[in-house]
Amino acid sequence: MNTLANDTFLRALRREPTEYTPIWLMRQAGRYLPEYNATRKRAGSFLALCKTPDLACEVTLQPLERYRLDAAILFSDILTVPDAMGLGLYFAEGEGPKFERPVRDEAAVRQLAVPDPSGELRYVTDAVRTIRGALAGSVPLIGFSGSPWTLACYMVEGGASDDFREIKTMLYRRPDLLGRILDVNAAAVAAYLDAQIEAGAQALMIFDSWGGALADGAYQRFSLEPMRRVIASLKRRVDEPLIVFTKGGGGWLEEMAGIGCDAIGVDWTVNLGRARARVGDRVALQGNLDPMALMAGPEQVRAEAIRVLDDFGAPKAGAGHVFNLGHGISQFTPPDNVAVLVETVHDHGRRLRGGGASASSL
Amino acid sequence: MNTLANDTFLRALRREPTEYTPIWLMRQAGRYLPEYNATRKRAGSFLALCKTPDLACEVTLQPLERYRLDAAILFSDILTVPDAMGLGLYFAEGEGPKFERPVRDEAAVRQLAVPDPSGELRYVTDAVRTIRGALAGSVPLIGFSGSPWTLACYMVEGGASDDFREIKTMLYRRPDLLGRILDVNAAAVAAYLDAQIEAGAQALMIFDSWGGALADGAYQRFSLEPMRRVIASLKRRVDEPLIVFTKGGGGWLEEMAGIGCDAIGVDWTVNLGRARARVGDRVALQGNLDPMALMAGPEQVRAEAIRVLDDFGAPKAGAGHVFNLGHGISQFTPPDNVAVLVETVHDHGRRLRGGGASASSL
Repeated sequence: MNTLANDTFLRALRREPTEYTPIWLMRQAGRYLPEYNATRKRAGSFLALCKTPDLACEVTLQPLERYRLDAAILFSDILTVPDAMGLGLYFAEGEGPKFERPVRDEAAVRQLAVPDPSGELRYVTDAVRTIRGALAGSVPLIGFSGSPWTLACYMVEGGASDDFREIKTMLYRRPDLLGRILDVNAAAVAAYLDAQIEAGAQALMIFDSWGGALADGAYQRFSLEPMRRVIASLKRRVDEPLIVFTKGGGGWLEEMAGIGCDAIGVDWTVNLGRARARVGDRVALQGNLDPMALMAGPEQVRAEAIRVLDDFGAPKAGAGHVFNLGHGISQFTPPDNVAVLVETVHDHGRRLRGGGASASSL
Repeated sequence: MNTLANDTFLRALRREPTEYTPIWLMRQAGRYLPEYNATRKRAGSFLALCKTPDLACEVTLQPLERYRLDAAILFSDILTVPDAMGLGLYFAEGEGPKFERPVRDEAAVRQLAVPDPSGELRYVTDAVRTIRGALAGSVPLIGFSGSPWTLACYMVEGGASDDFREIKTMLYRRPDLLGRILDVNAAAVAAYLDAQIEAGAQALMIFDSWGGALADGAYQRFSLEPMRRVIASLKRRVDEPLIVFTKGGGGWLEEMAGIGCDAIGVDWTVNLGRARARVGDRVALQGNLDPMALMAGPEQVRAEAIRVLDDFGAPKAGAGHVFNLGHGISQFTPPDNVAVLVETVHDHGRRLRGGGASASSL
């Protein structure tokens, strides 16, 4: 394993002491950056961008050239896995991701198989390798996957949904069928994450975007338990920490802390101080500024960032905080506000640890 | 005040002993009922239905003719108040509610005024009076309003939103301006609810549909505090209990229990047993079956309803449970499943109290 110039992010996830609070942003390589839009235009489409390792590498690095972020995250989509299962991922303009062949009946479920990460998904591991090379040991690279439940939502609904009627009808009527989809997805996600680690990812994140749509009880069975199985079956060593993020999952933090992850991502509805009291020193926490706070002026961005840091409090031994948004950054974010945010988090994070202000973060 | 043939719902809200667990369903008069669709067709539009007291009364009573529900709820829309402020409510086909004149700047905010409930909103109190007469003391009638924050969301966004960018930009940039909108809304909601009580409503509910979109801290300031002010300024007596429902508000139950309401509505992500432990005997709880559970077969509907009842547990002295869904009933619900649900809740609620099964609920 190579030595990193900046391993603050990894140490915070392992709840080891750090000099300041590390920060990265979900969707940090995205449409709020003009250079991203330029590369995407060159690629022709979002999917082409995901599937061309050199271009995926290019956009992954763009936010790191602008801001002193403490981690890079593989540029990809959470739906690469079901796409590789042959469901036909496409993006309808203004409508988000869709599948040509949703999984709605027993026959479709029976046909599902775990995709070989070195086959159809080769472009992902190629991108990981390319990005690792380009990062040259500056900051760690995060690999990621959608959660088995979240992938299932898109696979069964055939796209985004506001009531999850198709998959919940399956859940309540045919839990056995949903269980089989989740079994395949769990095995597929584990193989996919293993392949990313092997290609060079230094941390992992599981995005459970839709776990918060589930009823209490159903969440534990259909989202949390498959994630636990993914984590248990990974070949990763303790060196590569793993973050689980269930959006809307603030009610289940204690249970999330028990599935073998190193950190929990929390959305902005959660008070970080209370969350910390609930999970104790079992896991680190990642979050949780409201992405819309970045629509304000710089002074307000600063104040909101400080509030989040103060809510978590001073990271004493055994606790870890990685600053992030509570969800992906909005395409309407003024890029200058991100600079203010990163600087504030680093500076105030030092102050919280009793350190001097800012010379070393400039 | 007239004597009610069935006041189980009111007693449960007051945490007094009841023989069984009362039930009503959010949006119980709605598109899943063919008779509702027939009346709506006669009315010409959803808004015409809301604004014609005789027709609003007709649809309010329809679910009570089919099912042994323990309460009726005024048929109306949560956006009547901003409509009466002159913002021009309309419904674009398949897009939900919209306002012709959203409130986006200082000038628009300055023009906002509290509508007189006996003026523009007269059709609402007329409907309450008509429905009370038609109910003839069978079950209590619930009046309702959107919360000041939820009304503000629609007023500023101009319709539904998935990121609340307009109102959150105002919140973070110009909290003073948002504060003025919320002041007007709080006064308007209080006057509106007072007028409904005066016209005969026997319980009140505040729907805070979008409180769960707020960050911790912002929720307390911009949603909870205005609701507290509404409740504090109501002229209602202790006879008319009040329910507050913040969808996605499961993290804030303790704080909600302290704003003067009698009960808290909770969505399906919340475990009712844990919620009960958190709020103690300060308030009753209302909820919280996943509306999509009604897409299953009757056996599964029964099992899910029993699970919710068992999660709450036996309602001992000082506790109260009103069964409901965790959100409005889906238009795709098979009506027969609602019959199964109501019967199950009554029967199992009796069993939980150590009573015999079902003769009296048949």
